[in-house]
Amino acid sequence: MRVLGVDPGLTRCGVGVVEGVAGRPLTMLGVGVVRTPADADTGPRLVGIERGIEEWLDRYEPELVAVERVFSQHNVRTVMGTAQASAVAMLCAARRGLPVALHTPSEVKAAVTGSGRADKAQVGAMVTRLLRLSAPPKPADAADALALAICHIWRAPAQNRLQQAVAQNRLQQAIALHASKGRPS
Amino acid sequence: MRVLGVDPGLTRCGVGVVEGVAGRPLTMLGVGVVRTPADADTGPRLVGIERGIEEWLDRYEPELVAVERVFSQHNVRTVMGTAQASAVAMLCAARRGLPVALHTPSEVKAAVTGSGRADKAQVGAMVTRLLRLSAPPKPADAADALALAICHIWRAPAQNRLQQAVAQNRLQQAIALHASKGRPS
Repeated sequence: MRVLGVDPGLTRCGVGVVEGVAGRPLTMLGVGVVRTPADADTGPRLVGIERGIEEWLDRYEPELVAVERVFSQHNVRTVMGTAQASAVAMLCAARRGLPVALHTPSEVKAAVTGSGRADKAQVGAMVTRLLRLSAPPKPADAADALALAICHIWRAPAQNRLQQAVAQNRLQQAIALHASKGRPS
Repeated sequence: MRVLGVDPGLTRCGVGVVEGVAGRPLTMLGVGVVRTPADADTGPRLVGIERGIEEWLDRYEPELVAVERVFSQHNVRTVMGTAQASAVAMLCAARRGLPVALHTPSEVKAAVTGSGRADKAQVGAMVTRLLRLSAPPKPADAADALALAICHIWRAPAQNRLQQAVAQNRLQQAIALHASKGRPS
């Protein structure tokens, strides 16, 4: 499974591609940052993000895009930029028919470090170890994008099992409903 | 001046095109709503919004797109959807090289009703009157999109004067700085 992780942001949008399956060593295919000038208008900045994400999708052809889920509990201005950049990433993926998965920052931290409250340095150290890199990817946004991709690959089997269980349950309910309707009242 | 107003939202994204200049009667060229199913994933919904906005841009060829400025003071979930839909509208405009103007809800209300705290009904009534329509556009999102376009057309002369004054001031400062540097110390 090949996943593009996106740590959304208008000034620095982290991007990282990881390939592998849960339980086996993972491989980093690429990592970087899409940047737009902080003094530009939002419209052109979003065009810059779109162009950058498209280049990464063209180059690495991931099967899925994992994007950080944005919460509005932080600083208002930052949240808006993050929400806008993540919308562009989701749009680019969906336009190609690629599935989009959202993971919260604490899910990502917990997946790669074991603690949902790990700091940037810890996440960077674990990403370096898990992908067998010689040094932590910089800036932190790039490392976070890789962590998102790793998180998705590791959580995917559990999520698939959950989805299968839900689908199975719905099917059984539908069968039961159909059977009860079929009975004469 | 022809303006496309966009009242962003994932479920209902209001769109309205108004033509005219400040101080003259305005004309509505079109009004509507771009809808996406509430139970669909965000990625495909953003693709739906993009397709809708593109159709409006193709059909009416506005010179400018006025979008409601999103604040995060409201409900978290709503704000995220609004921020994402507005990002797509801004992206579509900027990709065509169209300027994007942001106006706050209270600026829009104040422009069309005289009060920044007017309710939906008041805004609808004034939009109906100002555009000489036979009935208020429905849903409210459609009326709000028209109000945004009207607000922009009416505020544009003042904004242009302000921008000119700022530019003039900067130029004079640059000249003064240049003159002072030219002098022997």
